[in-house]
Amino acid sequence: MSGNTFGRLFCVTSFGESHGPAIGGVVDGCPPGLALDARDIQADLDRRRPGASRHVSPRRESDAVEILSGVFEGKTTGAPIGFLIRNQDQRSGDYAGLADVFRPGHADYAYTRKYGFRDHRGGGRASARETAVRVAAGAIARKWLRERFGVTIFGWIAQIGPIRIPFSDEGAIAENPFFVPDARAVARIETYIDELREAGDSAGARLCVIARGVPAGWGNPVYDRLDACIAYAMMGVNAVKGVEIGAGFSCAGQKGSEHGDEMTPEGFLSNHAGGTLGGISTGQEIRVSLAVKPTPSIRLPRRSVDSTGRPVVVETRGRHDPCVGIRAVPVAEAMLALTLIDHALRHRAQCADVCCSSPGIS
Amino acid sequence: MSGNTFGRLFCVTSFGESHGPAIGGVVDGCPPGLALDARDIQADLDRRRPGASRHVSPRRESDAVEILSGVFEGKTTGAPIGFLIRNQDQRSGDYAGLADVFRPGHADYAYTRKYGFRDHRGGGRASARETAVRVAAGAIARKWLRERFGVTIFGWIAQIGPIRIPFSDEGAIAENPFFVPDARAVARIETYIDELREAGDSAGARLCVIARGVPAGWGNPVYDRLDACIAYAMMGVNAVKGVEIGAGFSCAGQKGSEHGDEMTPEGFLSNHAGGTLGGISTGQEIRVSLAVKPTPSIRLPRRSVDSTGRPVVVETRGRHDPCVGIRAVPVAEAMLALTLIDHALRHRAQCADVCCSSPGIS
Amino acid sequence: MSGNTFGRLFCVTSFGESHGPAIGGVVDGCPPGLALDARDIQADLDRRRPGASRHVSPRRESDAVEILSGVFEGKTTGAPIGFLIRNQDQRSGDYAGLADVFRPGHADYAYTRKYGFRDHRGGGRASARETAVRVAAGAIARKWLRERFGVTIFGWIAQIGPIRIPFSDEGAIAENPFFVPDARAVARIETYIDELREAGDSAGARLCVIARGVPAGWGNPVYDRLDACIAYAMMGVNAVKGVEIGAGFSCAGQKGSEHGDEMTPEGFLSNHAGGTLGGISTGQEIRVSLAVKPTPSIRLPRRSVDSTGRPVVVETRGRHDPCVGIRAVPVAEAMLALTLIDHALRHRAQCADVCCSSPGIS
Amino acid sequence: MSGNTFGRLFCVTSFGESHGPAIGGVVDGCPPGLALDARDIQADLDRRRPGASRHVSPRRESDAVEILSGVFEGKTTGAPIGFLIRNQDQRSGDYAGLADVFRPGHADYAYTRKYGFRDHRGGGRASARETAVRVAAGAIARKWLRERFGVTIFGWIAQIGPIRIPFSDEGAIAENPFFVPDARAVARIETYIDELREAGDSAGARLCVIARGVPAGWGNPVYDRLDACIAYAMMGVNAVKGVEIGAGFSCAGQKGSEHGDEMTPEGFLSNHAGGTLGGISTGQEIRVSLAVKPTPSIRLPRRSVDSTGRPVVVETRGRHDPCVGIRAVPVAEAMLALTLIDHALRHRAQCADVCCSSPGIS
Repeated sequence: MSGNTFGRLFCVTSFGESHGPAIGGVVDGCPPGLALDARDIQADLDRRRPGASRHVSPRRESDAVEILSGVFEGKTTGAPIGFLIRNQDQRSGDYAGLADVFRPGHADYAYTRKYGFRDHRGGGRASARETAVRVAAGAIARKWLRERFGVTIFGWIAQIGPIRIPFSDEGAIAENPFFVPDARAVARIETYIDELREAGDSAGARLCVIARGVPAGWGNPVYDRLDACIAYAMMGVNAVKGVEIGAGFSCAGQKGSEHGDEMTPEGFLSNHAGGTLGGISTGQEIRVSLAVKPTPSIRLPRRSVDSTGRPVVVETRGRHDPCVGIRAVPVAEAMLALTLIDHALRHRAQCADVCCSSPGIS
Repeated sequence: MSGNTFGRLFCVTSFGESHGPAIGGVVDGCPPGLALDARDIQADLDRRRPGASRHVSPRRESDAVEILSGVFEGKTTGAPIGFLIRNQDQRSGDYAGLADVFRPGHADYAYTRKYGFRDHRGGGRASARETAVRVAAGAIARKWLRERFGVTIFGWIAQIGPIRIPFSDEGAIAENPFFVPDARAVARIETYIDELREAGDSAGARLCVIARGVPAGWGNPVYDRLDACIAYAMMGVNAVKGVEIGAGFSCAGQKGSEHGDEMTPEGFLSNHAGGTLGGISTGQEIRVSLAVKPTPSIRLPRRSVDSTGRPVVVETRGRHDPCVGIRAVPVAEAMLALTLIDHALRHRAQCADVCCSSPGIS
Repeated sequence: MSGNTFGRLFCVTSFGESHGPAIGGVVDGCPPGLALDARDIQADLDRRRPGASRHVSPRRESDAVEILSGVFEGKTTGAPIGFLIRNQDQRSGDYAGLADVFRPGHADYAYTRKYGFRDHRGGGRASARETAVRVAAGAIARKWLRERFGVTIFGWIAQIGPIRIPFSDEGAIAENPFFVPDARAVARIETYIDELREAGDSAGARLCVIARGVPAGWGNPVYDRLDACIAYAMMGVNAVKGVEIGAGFSCAGQKGSEHGDEMTPEGFLSNHAGGTLGGISTGQEIRVSLAVKPTPSIRLPRRSVDSTGRPVVVETRGRHDPCVGIRAVPVAEAMLALTLIDHALRHRAQCADVCCSSPGIS
Repeated sequence: MSGNTFGRLFCVTSFGESHGPAIGGVVDGCPPGLALDARDIQADLDRRRPGASRHVSPRRESDAVEILSGVFEGKTTGAPIGFLIRNQDQRSGDYAGLADVFRPGHADYAYTRKYGFRDHRGGGRASARETAVRVAAGAIARKWLRERFGVTIFGWIAQIGPIRIPFSDEGAIAENPFFVPDARAVARIETYIDELREAGDSAGARLCVIARGVPAGWGNPVYDRLDACIAYAMMGVNAVKGVEIGAGFSCAGQKGSEHGDEMTPEGFLSNHAGGTLGGISTGQEIRVSLAVKPTPSIRLPRRSVDSTGRPVVVETRGRHDPCVGIRAVPVAEAMLALTLIDHALRHRAQCADVCCSSPGIS
């Protein structure tokens, strides 16, 4: 396997390049009987798509999804769900000058060394456009998690470049184009992004994603720990360079008496664990944080080499997000949903025989 | 799969509990013809085993490995390599009082909710003792990577609780029981650990691991990115709460013009990427950092509940590391080795037909 | 995984129903650099498609394949190859009466018991129409096997109902609509099929498939034996009820002195093994034989029950092959190709380090 | 993966050679809470072990199994079950002359071509001794299937060389060393086996295995069909050359009106399907038949080549079964149990949400 399938029981197989005719995927293993309609998927795709505000890539894509199989009379049948999103607004000419040049910070060089050559148009398979497939599949996972277990998942931006955004208002997230939980930060971010775009530069970001309502018992003790699978899912998103669960890196400076979440009959007294202990969910909120690097495709001149090894200066045109972290929010939500549904199915496969005798406390 | 197998082509299957008769594993998919002897494995096991200094768990285990199959006349045959490490110094009586109680910060509660009951002796499957299996398997991976590609892997402790250790002397790492790259920090750490032990508390840590000599081209573009698989491997180690590749979380505050590593005919000018771009190795050093939480089993009294949901106060006895992060260093090295060999084999499976036409620059 | 992905390294994921908008698939893990064009796939699809002669289903499908990804400037890139075949000539009305009735010998009953309900139009996912996806993916595998190793694969019909066809002329296979290796048998088969169609009945068949030029060394000793994987591939084709390798069932009556293929410096003296020993290819022809049951959808009245358990009499209309075994020939070839390429890649992943010191004899 | 793991959710990983210190395995994914004791496994191992009668290999092995993990206070915990069977009666000296020679019909040649060299003692990994691991793991699967679903599995010998044994008395199977369902055939078989042994030759066999009580709904429609997975499991047993489900090869000569099993409110009227339609169980008996080739290691002189390609004559000594098919009966039962439990878990993973609205008829 070359890694284009995600999940063991609820499996997404992804295909498509940024500048080919279409991207799409196949969801295999979806439980039968889930009410599903293209509109259920479209809503999440619309949150991710480019062209939605002036702060993201101006490429105009409707990202309209077509379901090709696996749904009959409005319900999933248990058969694989094939879906397709046609590409509409490619401008491959933008990339003509990049065929023989390696953009710094981009996949160009590594791809060429791996495959001997590459589809250079729009980054080909390395393009963040592929994340639409994840969002589409994630929407299906999310719907099942919500309807079957009451799980809700949402993410937000906690930092863009130098600007740290406090979590002051959960309701604000859906009301601004930056997915920030503080309406007062919006103007400052807009100014910052405008400056970046004018300067031809880009910025990194930090995201948070949480899942509420996950029952205790999902996950595994050793390699396929729930947290390990979340880390795999998140670090597998383009441009992500760091993943934390719960207290994350701050736990390095904590003592055991501070980090370990005490329990009472009323529930846990804190959540440094981020909802998972020993690789298994505890019933608390699953809390994940990730770092997204700045978009590598920038207009500022950068030193590089061409495919013959000679020095060149690269100035990337094309249409790019000044901060690719922003549109990563719905992608991270989708990856969390895909990870959780897979473990939900794995858990009931192995453990449906036992009833959990201990009273839940959270 | 309940997650006790790691890898797709070079696969480790692990079994065994802390207080059962033995732990062990099976390595399937090892290339034939590798010279291998139990001593090759023992050296790495000895770096991880408890009882080696007063700063780690005093449990006395020789951790002597027995190879049961897959090696003939000193060479791997291509058949699965079964190996066994007998447990010697269990003191299950230490855990008698914990059968019906959930230790805060420990897997106890989550296990019980998942499986309906649990083997409470020494943490059972949740014990860090399982990591000996990883180290044993990792030693095989490491030997092949070194002999076949010249890859070297090593890790160190960068922080223990409040003490941050500068990377001042690579040679010092092997010379102290804390795996720190600065001999001058040792005395201070010793004092700190002694204080922790006396207080009945524990501390977190930050580790780094790097791999040198990894060729460009290992990894995959989408879900099974090299960095995603590393994140999965590392977050799958007991007590790890965060993973970074290259610049990690600091990239959130970087600009694209700062983060993107420029290239010249002589090589890359920096390594914020940590050796991987677009999910594929670039030939630079693979750089990983991880956060390990404080040992949850501490002597200080902690509030919790018992299996009937009633409030209790827990004071864990047993023999535990005041800082479990220290012995995680050889484990993290092993996990990196296991991830790399798997991708080395996957890469040649798919791409052996093409020769990489571009000149390597790093 | 719900089983819609075939292969471990060269993976085909299939989707689509007989009467949905399209069927299609994703090939992941294809080696980069293979020259590939939709016409390479179309040729094999045309051998399988319905409507090609009066002896198969009269459904009119052009089965035109569209490649959506993974190919750039005429070569595979190493990225997943998505492809689509639109359905054109559905007549779902034919199936209106079957929504609540279980056809004897058909998947209807089992599907309903598994999924709670089913897409009854044209058999939904159970339709042999899905095999077009296998043929398309198999065409890619086949091309690589031929170009890289000189492997050739072909199948033929050895028996249709009571008519056994001798292997008298390999060249004849491509010259008749029944894939039989004896032109003299054609008229007799035509008469037989015409009689079946008029009677509203159907017939079983026996097929053979062989692969020439497979190098020694592909396969594995234990569970994933080459022959086991072939058996899985073939029994996974709709309507197949038996699979043999080499001497097959006749070996039950053989003695060891008769069955074991002797070797001389010039090669093997016989091929009862069918090209595989100990689960690994020997360099001889891979020889496979399979039994295909008669099409269950027949016009003759059959006793059955409806979804409420009441007795009914079923007479299936719709357009069906009188002998579904005939069009299974290109499907079986495709499945053999898919199995072989997967093992070719797996072999070089594990064993590329060793050179085979023994002189090949076949 | 080099194929030493069987199953997707209930996974057996096998290791060990005929003449190494031990063979063993790891069962991962076993449902927690199953009462389990080494004696549950030993009973099945005793039916397979050599030395039990004069008609099988005289090698003396107690085949005593040691459970190393995954069981606590008499119940499975959900953790991997490691188990070990020490080899006792190796006589590697018997194989000294075979190090550089390829036995006709044996894995020797293929192994050497794959791995560059081989462990020649007793066939190494190719030895049927590995099947003890399958029987041990299968015993666990079988116990769960019986206790949870009332499934019973049993096999018998239907043919040894020229002797076909009618299924006249199910109760007789356990009463004779040949697992034949007809006490009257025993004397004739004894005479035949004695003649074979004296002649230094061996014989093939045909086996049947059935599972009763399998609920409708296990399996999948496309690649991972229940019948395909059974075929994979059975053809993956040493020396098996053919597998049939239900009517098997006889279906090639049947008409649709004869093969398709009619249904009435009281149940199916026949079982040509062998208990599976469209890849999914129907609730009828699962019926499997397999062909086992004659033991390749015989005393009669056979032409072959040595590792330098020169002609030799091989006469195999060592201790071998005159008819390896006999001891394959418990192995085939185990493989069927392993296949069924895997699909039982897979089914409930995907389909636990839906209740099967149709009344079962069988």
